[in-house]
Order: sequence, then C-alpha cells, then structure tokens
Amino acid sequence: MLIFGRSLDYPMEFEILHKDSASDARAGILKTDHSEIQTPVFMPVGTAGTVKGVHQRDLMDDVNAPIILGNTYHLYLRPGLETLRGAGGLHGFMNWDRSILTDSGGYQVFSLAANRKLSPEGAQFRSHIDGSKHLFTPENIVDIQRIIGADIMMAFDECTPWPCDLKYARNSLELTHQWLDRGLNQFNSTDPVYGHRQAFFPIVQGSVFKELRKISAEYVAEKGAVGNAIGGLSVGEPAEEMYAMLEVVNALLPVDKPRYLMGVGTPVNILEAISMGVDMFDCVMPTRNGRNGMLFTRHGIINIKNRKWMDDYSPVDSDGYSFVDTQYSRAYLRHLIISGEMLGAQIASLHNLAFYLWLVRTAFEEIKSGTFTSWKENLIPALSTRL
Amino acid sequence: MLIFGRSLDYPMEFEILHKDSASDARAGILKTDHSEIQTPVFMPVGTAGTVKGVHQRDLMDDVNAPIILGNTYHLYLRPGLETLRGAGGLHGFMNWDRSILTDSGGYQVFSLAANRKLSPEGAQFRSHIDGSKHLFTPENIVDIQRIIGADIMMAFDECTPWPCDLKYARNSLELTHQWLDRGLNQFNSTDPVYGHRQAFFPIVQGSVFKELRKISAEYVAEKGAVGNAIGGLSVGEPAEEMYAMLEVVNALLPVDKPRYLMGVGTPVNILEAISMGVDMFDCVMPTRNGRNGMLFTRHGIINIKNRKWMDDYSPVDSDGYSFVDTQYSRAYLRHLIISGEMLGAQIASLHNLAFYLWLVRTAFEEIKSGTFTSWKENLIPALSTRL
Repeated sequence: MLIFGRSLDYPMEFEILHKDSASDARAGILKTDHSEIQTPVFMPVGTAGTVKGVHQRDLMDDVNAPIILGNTYHLYLRPGLETLRGAGGLHGFMNWDRSILTDSGGYQVFSLAANRKLSPEGAQFRSHIDGSKHLFTPENIVDIQRIIGADIMMAFDECTPWPCDLKYARNSLELTHQWLDRGLNQFNSTDPVYGHRQAFFPIVQGSVFKELRKISAEYVAEKGAVGNAIGGLSVGEPAEEMYAMLEVVNALLPVDKPRYLMGVGTPVNILEAISMGVDMFDCVMPTRNGRNGMLFTRHGIINIKNRKWMDDYSPVDSDGYSFVDTQYSRAYLRHLIISGEMLGAQIASLHNLAFYLWLVRTAFEEIKSGTFTSWKENLIPALSTRL
Repeated sequence: MLIFGRSLDYPMEFEILHKDSASDARAGILKTDHSEIQTPVFMPVGTAGTVKGVHQRDLMDDVNAPIILGNTYHLYLRPGLETLRGAGGLHGFMNWDRSILTDSGGYQVFSLAANRKLSPEGAQFRSHIDGSKHLFTPENIVDIQRIIGADIMMAFDECTPWPCDLKYARNSLELTHQWLDRGLNQFNSTDPVYGHRQAFFPIVQGSVFKELRKISAEYVAEKGAVGNAIGGLSVGEPAEEMYAMLEVVNALLPVDKPRYLMGVGTPVNILEAISMGVDMFDCVMPTRNGRNGMLFTRHGIINIKNRKWMDDYSPVDSDGYSFVDTQYSRAYLRHLIISGEMLGAQIASLHNLAFYLWLVRTAFEEIKSGTFTSWKENLIPALSTRL
C-alpha cells in the first residue's frame, strides 16, 4: 500500500553510518516522516503531551531534540482520543512537528492505575484520574497509538517487576510474546490515520534471567520489525545485571535495526549501553531529578540544594548548551529550587535535557571519528562525581 | 552628592509627553539608571526574585516589560541580604538589567507572617518559612531595599485592612505618616550601594474614607518625592469606592510626578485608573489567575477549564502578542491546565503578562494620539465579557 509514494511496508528508515571498532557502538540515522534522527539518541519524556516545564520552542531550538516520547496510558485517559483525533493527532495537538514515540501503556497500567486485572485478553484497570474502568488489549493499544499518530508505536507488554522469580518471569514473558503476535497482527492489518507512516517496535522482556532474555530476543528478532526495544530493565536491579542482559539481548537482536533501551537512565548507563550497541533511550531522570535540584554536567552531578552553592555566582554550567546555563547563576537556581519556584524546575529541566542531548550528539560524533571508547572511558569517572 | 556625574538628589527622571484632553490620563517617560519606562506601565510581580513561570529572557523579549516588582519581605527572608549583596543586588542575582521596584514588605508582614506585633517602632513578626523572629522598621526597610538595589524603593507602611472603622483607619494612617518621615530621613541620609540611583516613593493610605485620603495625599504631596504611591486599595472594597478614593487623592498628588496605584488590578481597573491620572500598576492577577486557567484578552475573559474549549483548536489568542498565543491551541492549553502541567501555567502567565503590557503600551499610544478616551470606552465592555 502506498501513501505519498512511500511504501507503508517500510515505515521507517535506518542506516548505520559507522561502527566503533573497540566496542559495539554505532552511529546511525533514523528517518521518520517527521524528522531525521541521529543515533544514539535520547528522547525527552513528554508523558501527557508536554515535556514538563519546557516550551516546545525551547525543546526544538535550545535542547534540539529530534524526537520525544508520549505515554499512551496518559494520553488515552486525558485529553482522550476524540480530542487527539480532532487535532490531527498528538503532533498537531501539542504543535510538535518532529518525531514522537509512544510507549504502550503497559508500564503505566501497572505503576499508576488502580484495580488492575491481568488476563490473556489484556489488562483491565481503573483510571488513576477519575476511577473509570478501562481495558487495554494488544489490539486496541495499536488502534490508540494510530489515533495518537506516533511515528514509532510500541507493543503492549507486561513490564515484569523486579525482583521476581523465574516462574513469574517466564509466565509474564509468555504473555508478552502472545500479546506481541496479536499487536503485530493488528499493526499489519491497519493503516495510519493521518497520512504519515508509523512503525511498530516489539519489546524484549525476561527480567534478569539470561535464558529468558535469550528466548525473548530470539522471538522478537524473528518478527523482522524495523526496530526493537528492550524493556523491563532499570527497574531496580543493579546496573551490572542490566548490562549482562544487554549483552545477551544485543547479540541476538538484528544488528541493522535500531535498538531502544526503555527507561534508561543515568548518563553513565547511557554511555555503557551505547558501547553495547543500543541506539535509543528515554528517561524521566533529566526532568524529574532536575525539578528536585539535581543537575547533570560533564564534570559531575550537582545537588543545587546544598549550602555550598548558596553564594556561587558562577553560571549554572559554563560548558552548557542551553541558554539557561549562562543566563542564570548557581546561587540563583539554588534559591529558586529551595523556594519551590517554578522557574527553578524550568531551568533545571532545560539544563539537564540539553546536557543529555549533548551527550548523545557527542557520542555520535565520537563514534564517527573512531574515538568513542577512549572518550567514554575518560568521561565516565567525571560523570558520576558528586560536585 | 554625585555618582557617575548624576546628582543623587534627582534619583529618577519623569517627563509627561502628552495629557489627554477628555480625561486625566497622561503619557510619560520615567527614567531610571536601568531603563526608560513608558507610562502608563504595568509591572509584572516577581515576588521572590522571579516572575513565576517566566524566564527573564521571555520577560524581556516576549512580554517586553521595562520594569518588574520584587518583594522586600520575601527577598529579605530568602535568599537573604548576604546572598543578594554578594550578587551585586537583585539585578545581578536574577540577571535582570531593566528596572526593579520593591514593595516595602508592609503588606506581606500582615498577610503572610506569623505572630505579628505592631508598635510605633515597627513590625515584629515570625517568618512564614522557618518561624524565625524579625523586626521591620521604617529605617531598616530602607537599608534592606538599598541592599536589594531596587531602582524604586517603597516606604514602610501599614496597608490598612478593609473593611475597618474610621478610628482604626485614622490611627493606622497616623502610624504610616510617622513611618514615612522616618523612612524619608533614612533615605536622605544613606547612599545607594551599587552605584545606580534609587528613588523612594511615599504611600498614601486612609482606607475608603475621603477625609483621611485627603489628609494623607496632602501629607505625602508635601514631601516632594520624585514619585508617589497609593496603597490600601483593591483589598476587597467595591471598585466604585476605589475610584472615589483615586479622585480625591489624584487631585492632591503633584501632577508632574508619577503616581503608582499598588496592587491593581483587572484590565478595566487599570484603564479607569489611567483615565484618572495613574501612571504605574502592579498586580499578581495575570500570573496567579493565569496559573488557574483565567486568560485575559481584548475580546473578554476565558476560563480555559470550561468544557467549551475542549475541542477548540484555534490559537490561544490570535490577536495576542506572546509567542505562546499562536504556538498553542486553546484545546491544548485546557488539557495542560486541567492536568496540572507546569507548561499550562507557563503559557497562561506569558499570555496574560503580554496582554497587560499590550494594554498599557496601547494606552500610551492612544493618549499620545488624543484618542485614549474613545478607545477605552470601546474596549471596556469587551474586556469584562465572559467568553
């Protein structure tokens, strides 16, 4: 089927421009109908159709994010599908004309909703907003994401909680795989709503069990999707376990398709995962921790609430890439955060997002230059320093 | 005494460019060492050194505010004088190089602080933040505003509550007048801290009693200050009583000095007061009501929470002067405000502030063109329409 002369069988292009010789890192370009995305990429989280505290203009021009995330669970409940459809989808609704990826709501149903009831059919739950009753199925989650209009849609899965035993993880994985087949089927038998292409990513689960991760990665790889995601990590387990799972999974996921590690993470997590062949990331950390006064910089982590910043009139981050980094001082930002002023959250969010995007842009350049691994090894000790 | 070749005896220049023939409205220019301010002017309120939800860059380039307000009470308590002095005053601390006016804290002591005890000496109180004990006097309020570095400092007064009886109002007024003399004395015997000039405005009080307002306006006028303020209005009394007081007071305050009506008000209040000869305004309404979803436009007032805006995909305000007015839709802003998203408060605050500044800029132009009164009469019915 053709829309605008493009085959919908190829809902997204991905090209690897360079592979690092000393690691599995890759520099690539991912193309949707809304933007060209250099990978590795970090996607700011815009849960309810807004990256908290950041104007779309600043997300474009200051943070320079080529793609952001929306949450199916939140957007389905509010503003709701009728409003989104009337706006021509989330792009039109929030006035964002670069790419959007939506997660499938699986994680949110289990972390936010009330009265959850899981069955082979899907997940029944009550809205955390008004208590209303809803059912998510692998099929309607595709339909909902069609209406949201995400460039990249995610399969409905159970994000296996950590810790859990092998039996639970195996059953959970089996459900996720059944749901994947049903979601893929729905994806293949429906069309985009707004004329732009939509891709569909399966999700590898399997908790921290290598044998399950292997089974899942093989199962997912065989679907031949244009991109694949790794879920159920960074949910409390030690970082070493996450890296061990990544090693197993990335050895099996197709090398020529983008790999998306969901919900990760710290700057160090991101660099390590890039070196293991991951291309896409999202995390609430830069905005959520920013609102609480934690700033990530290339020299280390600043807790701006500490008394030591009280009379530090130097810029928030003299190496920073956001306008806020040089326009405001640390003493001023400390005052705002301690006083609970909105502007403090706005400044910290912009700073952190600009830092995360700088990190992945620089990783791209370093991979292209063949210097990624030494750059990463030099940077990592600084990144986790507490300033 | 001379600093930078300017006499500190003239801490501010004010020139009236045009007087309206059909009303007492005037168009003028007020010059501080930080900016030239067209009057009538509206001053956005930046209580704790930030106009809530608005970046300084947007306050400059988008709202185009030539002067903002800071609160002595808040700034004294947090970040405190040591931090402010270290930053070179509030201008340096918040990186705002246009003008700043600080209120004296009288109003806040009585509305926010705990364990207030009023005496002829001053006002003792406990901080609403940490319970610490403090004393404000007419003298130290001048000293504090010297350290804050405001271009325009306000006298310490008792903002007489409404309603109150004549006796209370008379005693309160007497205290305010005594405090004015002591404040003026302190002002005249101290110098600016940072090399830029600072003006000092007395405040007319007297509640809603014409005879007291007359006494107070005469008392204040006789001080020969470079500008005069009218306080204790818009504190709950009917608008008609406020206008009646303005008529009494403005007949007595010097015609060639700027008149500042504190804490006022709605767009209609502002236009009426301009027509009665007021030049300067401040109010939390555009930001506070904005955060709650109330939008002021030239066609009327929008409560964006109303269901009728749910699928209104038209711009927030197609006539608006802020970038937010055309970048976001009403349906989207409604979603943000209803969801309690920060961006909703940010958008509404920018919109309302840009509207208020548009209103006073246009008033300036209309006065200059001799068309102010007809413009005002045409506009007022629309301004209070509920859309």
